[in-house]
Formats: sequence, structure tokens, C-alpha cells
Amino acid sequence: MAATPSVSRIDGRTPGQLRPVTIERAWSKHAEGSVLVSFGDTKVLCTASFTEGVPRWRKGSGEGWVTAEYAMLPRATNTRGDRESVRGKIGGRTHEISRLIGRSLRAVIDYKALGENTIVLDCDVLQADGGTRTAAITGAYVALADAVAWAQGRKLIKAGRKPLTGTVSAVSVGIVGGVPLLDLCYEEDVKADTDMNVVCTGDGRFVEVQGTAEAEPFAREELNALLDLAVSGCGELAELQRKALDTVLEK
Amino acid sequence: MAATPSVSRIDGRTPGQLRPVTIERAWSKHAEGSVLVSFGDTKVLCTASFTEGVPRWRKGSGEGWVTAEYAMLPRATNTRGDRESVRGKIGGRTHEISRLIGRSLRAVIDYKALGENTIVLDCDVLQADGGTRTAAITGAYVALADAVAWAQGRKLIKAGRKPLTGTVSAVSVGIVGGVPLLDLCYEEDVKADTDMNVVCTGDGRFVEVQGTAEAEPFAREELNALLDLAVSGCGELAELQRKALDTVLEK
Amino acid sequence: MAATPSVSRIDGRTPGQLRPVTIERAWSKHAEGSVLVSFGDTKVLCTASFTEGVPRWRKGSGEGWVTAEYAMLPRATNTRGDRESVRGKIGGRTHEISRLIGRSLRAVIDYKALGENTIVLDCDVLQADGGTRTAAITGAYVALADAVAWAQGRKLIKAGRKPLTGTVSAVSVGIVGGVPLLDLCYEEDVKADTDMNVVCTGDGRFVEVQGTAEAEPFAREELNALLDLAVSGCGELAELQRKALDTVLEK
Amino acid sequence: MAATPSVSRIDGRTPGQLRPVTIERAWSKHAEGSVLVSFGDTKVLCTASFTEGVPRWRKGSGEGWVTAEYAMLPRATNTRGDRESVRGKIGGRTHEISRLIGRSLRAVIDYKALGENTIVLDCDVLQADGGTRTAAITGAYVALADAVAWAQGRKLIKAGRKPLTGTVSAVSVGIVGGVPLLDLCYEEDVKADTDMNVVCTGDGRFVEVQGTAEAEPFAREELNALLDLAVSGCGELAELQRKALDTVLEK
Amino acid sequence: MAATPSVSRIDGRTPGQLRPVTIERAWSKHAEGSVLVSFGDTKVLCTASFTEGVPRWRKGSGEGWVTAEYAMLPRATNTRGDRESVRGKIGGRTHEISRLIGRSLRAVIDYKALGENTIVLDCDVLQADGGTRTAAITGAYVALADAVAWAQGRKLIKAGRKPLTGTVSAVSVGIVGGVPLLDLCYEEDVKADTDMNVVCTGDGRFVEVQGTAEAEPFAREELNALLDLAVSGCGELAELQRKALDTVLEK
Amino acid sequence: MAATPSVSRIDGRTPGQLRPVTIERAWSKHAEGSVLVSFGDTKVLCTASFTEGVPRWRKGSGEGWVTAEYAMLPRATNTRGDRESVRGKIGGRTHEISRLIGRSLRAVIDYKALGENTIVLDCDVLQADGGTRTAAITGAYVALADAVAWAQGRKLIKAGRKPLTGTVSAVSVGIVGGVPLLDLCYEEDVKADTDMNVVCTGDGRFVEVQGTAEAEPFAREELNALLDLAVSGCGELAELQRKALDTVLEK
Repeated sequence: MAATPSVSRIDGRTPGQLRPVTIERAWSKHAEGSVLVSFGDTKVLCTASFTEGVPRWRKGSGEGWVTAEYAMLPRATNTRGDRESVRGKIGGRTHEISRLIGRSLRAVIDYKALGENTIVLDCDVLQADGGTRTAAITGAYVALADAVAWAQGRKLIKAGRKPLTGTVSAVSVGIVGGVPLLDLCYEEDVKADTDMNVVCTGDGRFVEVQGTAEAEPFAREELNALLDLAVSGCGELAELQRKALDTVLEK
Repeated sequence: MAATPSVSRIDGRTPGQLRPVTIERAWSKHAEGSVLVSFGDTKVLCTASFTEGVPRWRKGSGEGWVTAEYAMLPRATNTRGDRESVRGKIGGRTHEISRLIGRSLRAVIDYKALGENTIVLDCDVLQADGGTRTAAITGAYVALADAVAWAQGRKLIKAGRKPLTGTVSAVSVGIVGGVPLLDLCYEEDVKADTDMNVVCTGDGRFVEVQGTAEAEPFAREELNALLDLAVSGCGELAELQRKALDTVLEK
Repeated sequence: MAATPSVSRIDGRTPGQLRPVTIERAWSKHAEGSVLVSFGDTKVLCTASFTEGVPRWRKGSGEGWVTAEYAMLPRATNTRGDRESVRGKIGGRTHEISRLIGRSLRAVIDYKALGENTIVLDCDVLQADGGTRTAAITGAYVALADAVAWAQGRKLIKAGRKPLTGTVSAVSVGIVGGVPLLDLCYEEDVKADTDMNVVCTGDGRFVEVQGTAEAEPFAREELNALLDLAVSGCGELAELQRKALDTVLEK
Repeated sequence: MAATPSVSRIDGRTPGQLRPVTIERAWSKHAEGSVLVSFGDTKVLCTASFTEGVPRWRKGSGEGWVTAEYAMLPRATNTRGDRESVRGKIGGRTHEISRLIGRSLRAVIDYKALGENTIVLDCDVLQADGGTRTAAITGAYVALADAVAWAQGRKLIKAGRKPLTGTVSAVSVGIVGGVPLLDLCYEEDVKADTDMNVVCTGDGRFVEVQGTAEAEPFAREELNALLDLAVSGCGELAELQRKALDTVLEK
Repeated sequence: MAATPSVSRIDGRTPGQLRPVTIERAWSKHAEGSVLVSFGDTKVLCTASFTEGVPRWRKGSGEGWVTAEYAMLPRATNTRGDRESVRGKIGGRTHEISRLIGRSLRAVIDYKALGENTIVLDCDVLQADGGTRTAAITGAYVALADAVAWAQGRKLIKAGRKPLTGTVSAVSVGIVGGVPLLDLCYEEDVKADTDMNVVCTGDGRFVEVQGTAEAEPFAREELNALLDLAVSGCGELAELQRKALDTVLEK
Repeated sequence: MAATPSVSRIDGRTPGQLRPVTIERAWSKHAEGSVLVSFGDTKVLCTASFTEGVPRWRKGSGEGWVTAEYAMLPRATNTRGDRESVRGKIGGRTHEISRLIGRSLRAVIDYKALGENTIVLDCDVLQADGGTRTAAITGAYVALADAVAWAQGRKLIKAGRKPLTGTVSAVSVGIVGGVPLLDLCYEEDVKADTDMNVVCTGDGRFVEVQGTAEAEPFAREELNALLDLAVSGCGELAELQRKALDTVLEK
């Protein structure tokens, strides 16, 4: 399966190539961390809100909390979707992705080191072209890192403590026309037989693996090929996150 | 009252001066019209979604419909607000502003010329610093104009018909420390004794006047001074809208 | 524009004439203040509920709180409307009017003098014929005054303190067939080009001015003519409120 | 048990005496039938809204539909209750009473004779002092009769058809301090060991019997004594309904 | 009416005969009391959850609380019903029955003896064939008794205190084809002219009597015949409850 | 890692051993397919409701639809959870699992062969002890197969058509104390570092792979070991499903 060099992706990429990725920090003047991340035409605004204190069920534990909420603007997609606030309830897909983002970021958080503080990550999709949840996780990590640094700068986190135990990024992979591809755009996504979202830490271990047979059940070797692609993609993203965070913010 | 040249506004503006205004068209790849408008640090993404057909109650009338929805991202403001979708209901302020935007745009729409088509304006505040509803109206008009042009280009609106009967823009005015000021930023807004939002057509007539005494009831002459400022501000905004729309989009 | 003596209003009134207004105090046996107000066929039951204590966010401030809720009975209007409780959510119009009534009454409240007490005004429209929000404000002020007097009588408000800093009333005005009219009934309201609700204090200053172009944008001189009518109408209403409150209640 | 002539009720009534009952027809200008009914200090506004057509599940059946909604104004009671519209859901008690009123009225409706028309009864409690559901049923029947007559007058119901097969009224009974009492006021109601609501047709048969042991289970002879009282009370109410409907309305 | 020995019920029972009743205790491994009760093909799982503490409004009273929630699985009935959780609101019927079950059980509870503890009864209908609410009450009483015994065993209720003042069971009765029948199955229920649910204590007194004329109002003698049947049926059920509780649980 | 024969699981199982699994068909008298499935103490009632017709968005396509809803009874777990119907909204976890079950079953459905019919799978957890979603999928497949057979028997599916393209089952796996285990019970689940749910077809391919690092990110070899266990467990479950379906139902 690896021997398909001649595949021509819709946007000219090779099977194992990411779309152009940009990570713009300090996008918002209010949030403690804020990142506009783009994976090609997918653009997600990730803000990290730091507040002292924790939810009631965690008070007195000495531990912090990190959670996330994901949403799409109504016209982020090709046809306008109803607002969930107007419908009066959150859909299953939104719930599912919000939970995935929260779990992914908590995988690299040391609650004790964070102390009794809460960080909420809001990931709002401004424009969607496939891979919104993976872009959200990748961008949210950077916003989270900025919020942690902000709190450390204000001594809201005890000196010497490191709430972040690693880095985390995510990417989608899928089998389209029999070929495993990295970082599917929307048009590829709808044609995929199998669709998988993989969240990795910077050291290459897995935080979350979610693979779904859209059309046809998939075999073990296909799963393996997808995991190879995803690990490699997450590695590139981790490097891009590192570079983005190395820049000194003027803010 | 006009004789207060020495007032020093927080950002150095004169009492009758707008903040820097930018109107960025074709911001989104999906929407028929999309504008990122900024009034200083207030940034609102306005998308216009054109669909053929009208709501059930209007079918067979031969007339179109235009409506609007306004929302704020949770961390558009200085402290994070709960998502209305998570709370399961829309707050009164959101309802009020959505209705205001819809009425303002409908004031320059000829339903017959639009035909049985619907345009929904989504105004999502990405960053707030006062005047979000007036920026939203001003930007939404441009997105609306683009969506109308898009539909005309695809013959979805009959040849020769002009659904737009004029242009519309809006600005806030208020009395701060006894001085009438144009286009309040958030810090001025919270100190204002009186706060007014004025929506005008390009020919200087009023579509909506909403004045509220925040601290102290206001006198007729104060009202007059505020209206003078607002009319002048809306005139400038109308000119900026015209310039933005004169640019040829490559999209 | 004032020179239109020959206009014939649907109910025979002159352009600047209010409908017959009645203010019936102590309508309910339970509420601390309760008023059945009528502006012609519009009838609104306004009750003021006084409770010791304030909402959580205001505790310890030494200041009180006043808020309002507006609603219509399902068959207050010509065709039955769905109950908002059955629909499970409050509509935008209801939200908007509840907020307007609350702001209007708070404009004449000295929170410090009220102390940590709360007064809730419920304005339920029993029968609607235009101007329900202005009748509600006008009646609610009287119910509020009664509730304040009730609390003073029970020493729930400190001796010598005056929570009410003035009086407040409201009226609608509009341009119908080119003529500015005071206190529109429903049939006039639906034909109005411009519709304005004005809330004034008893000393003739403005608390709220909300003008909307229903059909055609309006010019500055039209706005001025409407404001003249409204100020005069609110003056008459303030006098009627004063007379109603001068009566000694037996209750 | 009947031998307790010396009981002294809080308002001086004998055990088998109703409170003063008033039935004011044509209270509202809009509704096809509207009645302000009072049982002592309990006041309920009952409106009947007639519309042509039936709900979807009944279309084409040739049969009509009658339903009811009950609600209390927030300050109908001694302490203010939250609005169900604001809470976003209807409480169990409201549901239960709305269903009871609907069933009671449907018991005297001939759906075929009504034809494919719908009548909705809205029973809004303006002031509560016990027995609101029984007053509502009693008043709603009169409003229903007026709406039926209205429709017959407009030929919306076929000539010669009689949608009403009888009359219906309701009353509460209860055992207070060991004594069976008719038509409990609120103060009696809270002290009752057993509380029963009985709905009867004009010919003395039962439509609904709902007895609840509030404090102590009740014996068969107590149940019998309560039923005797209720049948007698409903008989008096049926007579009052008849008299009210005999009056010619000028409307 | 009693002289109808030849009636042939759909399942061959005599008019005064219960369906086969089973009461299976300790059905669930988690709940403090849990009973799978069946009245013929009607199967209800009743669990009693004991928790220390009471709702906020009862704190410090020294008294406990007992409440109930009733629900049906979507396919408990012949055609699938929507889930109330998916619809986002509880229907009137569900509310009504939950309230009935709670009241019925509270009728045999001594709150003081229970102490500040709460017992919640969940009655979930797994399969419905008429009489779900009466089966629920009958089974819930047994689950309640088990939860009380569980708490006594763990000294969560003070030694010597008896929170249960009696036993409670319920049965439906109705008039079908002119004949009073005990314990209606679904097919009988839909044909019934009158339908009554009766809740009795073990000593034969009434806790709740709810009779409804489905088709035709009913006369006093019919009511009497139904009450006779119900009292007899509840007596049998009380005996079955006693036998079930006499068995020693191994759990 | 495979070399850990000495591990002692809480219930004495070997690492690769399933809990006792029972599949009881035709549990309910109403549903077209109904299965009470148990994986040890986890018991899920799965009903399949067959209805002719499809949702609006699928009409005219000639294709059918299969969907699923998952829920837990309030006291299925060790401490009582609030009912989602009472809270008025469905939680994220419930949404997520309902979607997973639906996707899993649709993976073995040929929509064309099903024709324009809908099958809804309701999976209600009566008792929970870990693995509720995997038991639900495994049981729901059998209910689905029964509903398909029912419809074929009634000629609601065209002769010769096979709507089921295979079988599907699911199992959980996880790493507890460094050891990969199959089919975790609740107590193991809360201690797991990594938790994975795997859905396989009867021929051993993957429909869904969902792995989550609960405590520590997991390495590729751990993922491989878990997948090995899961594939083996699903194979056993497929065999149990086959046996269950081979039995002739008397119903």
C-alpha cells in the first residue's frame, strides 16, 4: 500500500504531506492564551481562559482543572447550519469533539502542579475544510501553553512547578480510494472509506486513537498504515508548535 | 457643550472621531458574502448566507426575507462568558441585538425585488471592545451587498431588480463626564451616563434610535447633541462602506 | 406638521390625545403593590413583589435591586399565541420588553436608600390593543411606589430614606399616514411608518428613546415632532400617576 | 359526621356552603368566549379560542378537538413563584391541572357535532385562594359555551348540530379537623387531612373524582360524605352557570 | 351489576380477579432496594436509592424525604415512543404519575422516624400492558421497605424508629361494556368507559382515588361498585407484598 | 507483555477471558427484536423497532435507515444519577455512545436491501458494571437480526434481499497495572491506564477503534497487544451471537 507514489491528491499533496499549517499566537487582546490555527482552509480560533479556583467538586483537592468547548460558526461550512444556542441544545457531534479536546489536553497536564486553577479552552471553528478537531487540539495546546506561562508570570502558579508534562498535537488520516492519506481536507474526508483521528504526545506516544469505518470495515494492516502516517504527521505538528512557542511575544 | 476641545479621550481621539475602521471583504471561502469588520479592537465576522426559498409563512408571496443572528464568542470579552448553547437558551441581550440588526438591514431591502429568496446575516463577535452591535450592522450591510451581487451574478435575482434600496450603517454615541462622544470603546461605555445607538441610511435618515439613560436621565439638548454626532459618524461609515464595495474582489 | 387639525383617528382622538387611562391600585390581595392599568383597551396587571435580600451577586453591597418581567396571556391578542412556558423558551420580544421595563424603573431608584431588598415587577398583559409596554411601565411605577410605601410602613426600609428619586411614565408615538400621533392603538400601530417608545421622568427628561423605522427611514424633523408629542404625553401620564397615588388606600 | 352544625369556618361559612361565586362573561374583547370567574378571592380568567381546523393527527376525521392550558401569574399567590417560561419548563402541577381541565370539558363535547374545529381554553389564575382548578373548570365551561355559540352564529358549526352534550362544573371538598367541608379556601386547604376535587355534569354524574389523603388515609364513609357535599356543590354551580349563560350579551 | 358471572374477559379472568402478580426482590446489585414487579405482562423495575441528607428546603428539620420518578422505556409499548430525554422535556402523563407514586408512598412514611435521609424511588416500565402506575406503586412499596431495612441494618436510622407506618398498594378498576372489572390490561383499558386508579393502605383505607370518565360520565352506584372491587384487589396485593417481604434475602 | 500468566484479576479471570455472556432473545412482547444481554453483571435491554418509512431527508432514496439510542436507568450504577429527561438535556457521554452504537450497526447494513424502512435500536442499561457500550452493541446486533427476520417474514423486505452484510460485536480492552486485559469490569475500568473499545465484524475486520489514555499515553506495542486481545474477544462474541441466533424462537 505504501507503494502508491503516483497518487494525485486534490490539492497536489503527496499522501503523507500535511496541508500548510499556521499558528498565530496572541490573536485576541483579552484571553490569557489565544491562537488562530489553520490547517489549509480550516481555521480555528483557540482561546485559553485562566481563572483562579476550580469547580465545586474539586475544591480543596489542591488540584486544577482543564476543560474544552468546541463549536462551529453557523457559516463555517459550505451550507449554513443552525446555531446550537438557537436550537437550545448541543448536538452529539459537538459534545463528542469537546470531550475529545478536553481529554487530549488533560493528558499533558499535571493537576497538582497547576494548583487550584482552571483553564478553559474555547475552540471556535471560523472556517471548516476537514480536520477541525485535530486543528483545534493542535492550536489549543499552544494557547494552553501561553496561558500557563501567563499564570507563571503572575505567580498564580507556584514557582518551580510545571503544569505541562509534555506537548500534544493531533491529525486525521484516512483511506481514500484504497490509499492511506494524511490530514484529509473536506473533499477527501467525504470520500474516505476509513477515517481516523489520532492524538499524540510530542514523544510519539498515543493519547487517543479513534478510527471509524465509514464505508467498509478495515483490516489490521490498513490500521497499521494509518497509524504510521499519523505518528509522522503529529511529529511534524509538534515541531511546528515548538517553533511557534519559541517566538517571543511582544504583547 | 460643543465647546469642549480640550477633552482627552482614553485613546487620544477627539469627541467626534471614529476609531480606525477596517472592512475586509471575502473573509470566508464558503459564504456568499463575508466581512471581517473592525471598529478599533472590536472585531466582528459578518457572513451573509443566501438560500433560495423563504420561510413557510412567506411562501407564495413573491417576497424575500432577510434576518440576522448575533453572538459573541465566549472569550470575546475580558472575562469568559458561558456559551448560550451550553446554557440551552439565548439571553435577552443577544435576542435584542439580533432583532436590531435584522430590522436595520430590512430597512434597505425591497422584498419584491429580492424575490422568494432568504439571506441570513450571522454576526459573530470575535473580539469585543464596545460598539459590537454597531460594527455588526455596518459590516453586515457590506456582506449583504456582496451576497446580493453574488445572487445577481447567478441570475437568482431577476435581471434589472435592485433588492437594496440604500445603504445602512450604525454607530454608538454617549455622554461621558458631561461630554458627548462618538463611537465609545468599552472603557468609555461603562462610564457613560447616557448611551445611544443610532442606525442611519446613507442619505442621513434614521432607521433606529435607541437611547438609554444609564445613570442620569438626559435632557432634550443632550439628545440633540448626540444625534448630531451620530449622523456625522454614520456619514463617515457610509463612505467607508462605499469605498470597500468599490474594490473589485478576485474571488 | 403640527398643523394637521383635520386628521381623523380611528377612535376620534386628536393627534396629541391619549386614550382614556385608568390606574386601579391594590388590585390583588397578595402583592405589596398591584395596579391594573388601562390605556384604552390595553389592560396590564402590574404587581410589585417586595422581598428582603438581594441576588447573590449583589450581597454585601448595601444596595437593593429592582427587576421586571413582562408577558402576555395567550389570548390577550386577536389571535391566540403559544405560551412561552409551553414552547420552553422566551421570545426575543418578551426579553426585550422585560429589559426595557426594568431599566426604566431602575432609572428612578436609589439603590442605597432601598437597602438590600429586591422588588420584582410582573407586568402581565390581560388584553392588548397597542402600547402594552408603555402602559406596563406607567402602571409598574405606581405598583413600585406602593411596594416602597408598604416596606417603609413595615420599617423594612430605613426611616428617612427615599428609594424613589422621581417618577417615570412612558408612551408610544408614531407617524401614520404622514401625521405624528400620540399613544397608538393596535390598528394605528400596524400602519405606522415610524414607531417610537419614549420613557420620561416626571421632570420631563428622557430615560429611554426607542424609535424604529417600520416602513421608511425618518428624518430629523419627524423625530423632533415625535419627541414633542411624547414629552407632552408623558407629562399627562405623570399627572395621572400622581393623582392615583394621592388617593388613600383602605387596604 | 353530618351532625356538626356548630363548626365555625374561617370565613363564617357553614360546612356545605360555597364561597360567593361570580361569573363575568365577555371579559375580553378578543376571545370568542371569555369569563372572569371568582370563587371568593380566587379569580381565574378563562378564554376560549375557536379556530377552524384540527391538529394534524385528527385531520380528515370529521371530528373537532378541545384542549386546555392552565397557568398562574407569578404573584397570584402569597409569595411570588418563578415564571414557568423563564424556568424553561412546565411544572408537574401545571401539567396535571391542564390535563384535568381538558378532560373535564371534553366529557361534554360531541366531536362530530363540533366538526373539524378546535377550541383552546386558557385558564390563567390572576389571584389564588384555593380551588383554582375547580374555578377554572367552572368558568371554562361558560367560555366554551360562548365560543360554541359564537361559531354557530357564524355558521362555522353546521346548523342543527349541538357540540355540547351537557354542562360541567367542579368543586373541591376536604376534611378539615374531622369535618367535611365544601369549597376550601387556601387556609382550609393547607390544614385538610383529605382533599378531593370532583367534576360533575349538570345531571349529577361524575366526570372526575380525585381524592388524596394529605395527612391520614381516609375511610369509605369519609369518602361518601365528601362525595355528597361535592355533588350538592356542583349542582349549585351548574345553576349559577345556567343563570350566567341566560343573560343576553351585548357584545 | 354484580350479577354478571358470565362475563368473559379477554384473558379468561373473572371480573374481580387480578392478573398473575410477581414481586422479585433484590433484582439489582446496586440499589438499596430493588424490585421487578409484574402484573401480567406489565413489568416495572422499581429501585429505591437511600442517601443521607435531605433537599435544601428540608435541612435542619430533622425530617426525611421520599420522592419518586416514573418513566417508560421507549419500546415498553406496542409502538415506540420518543424518549423524553431526547425531546428535552417530560410529558404531562409522566409528571402526573411520578407525583402520584411519590404521594402514595409518602402516605405511609413517618418523616421524623426516617430522620434527615432521602429515599428516591425510580419506577421504570420495561414492558407495558395496562396498570403500569398501580404496579409501580405496589412494587415501589416493597423496594422502599427493603431500603428502610437496609438503612436500619447500617444504623442510618435510629434504633427503635419505624419510618413505615403501614403498607400501600394500588390497583386499577374500570367499567368495560357496563361491567366493573379489576386490574385492567391494556386492551380492556382502551375500551373502558370509566377508568379508576385506587391506592389503599394495608388496613383498607384510601390514600388516593382517581376516577375518570373516559367516554360517559358515571353514576354514584358505578363508583361504589368500582371502589368495592378496588378495595378487594388492594387487599390481595397487600397480602402478596407481605409474603414477598417475609422471604429472607440472601444478598 | 503477553508473558503475565500469574496476573490475578478481581473476579479470577485470566487476562484474555470474557466475563460470562448471556444473550436472551425475545425478552419483550412488543418489539420486533428484543435482547437482554449480559456481560457479567452488566445487563442491557436492547430492543429493535421496525417501522415502514424513513426520515424525511431520506425519502425517495429507496434506502433504509438504522439508528440507535443508549441510556442508563438512574440507579443502574452504584450511586443514583439524575435522569436526563428531568435535567432536560442529554449528556455528552450518552450522545457519544448512542452515535457509536448506530455507526457500528450501520456498518453491516445494506441500505438498498433494507428498502425504505427504519430500524431503531434502544439500548437501556438496567445494571452497569463496565462495558455497557460494548454489551449494547453485541446485544443490539442480535435484536437487529431478529427485527430483520421479522420484517422478512412479513414481506416488508423484498424476497431475496439481505439487509445484513455481516455480523458485528464489541468488547473493551485496557491496560491495568501494566497488563493488557479483555472485557474490563467497572472496578478494573477505573484503574485502567488505557481504555479501548473495539468493534469488529464477524470476519475479524475493524468497524471502530477507540483508544484513550486515561492516565499515561500509550506506546505502539501496547496498542498492538490491546488490539490482539480485542480481536480475539470479538471472535468469541461473534460465535455466541451465532449460537443465540441459531435457536428457534417460539414467539
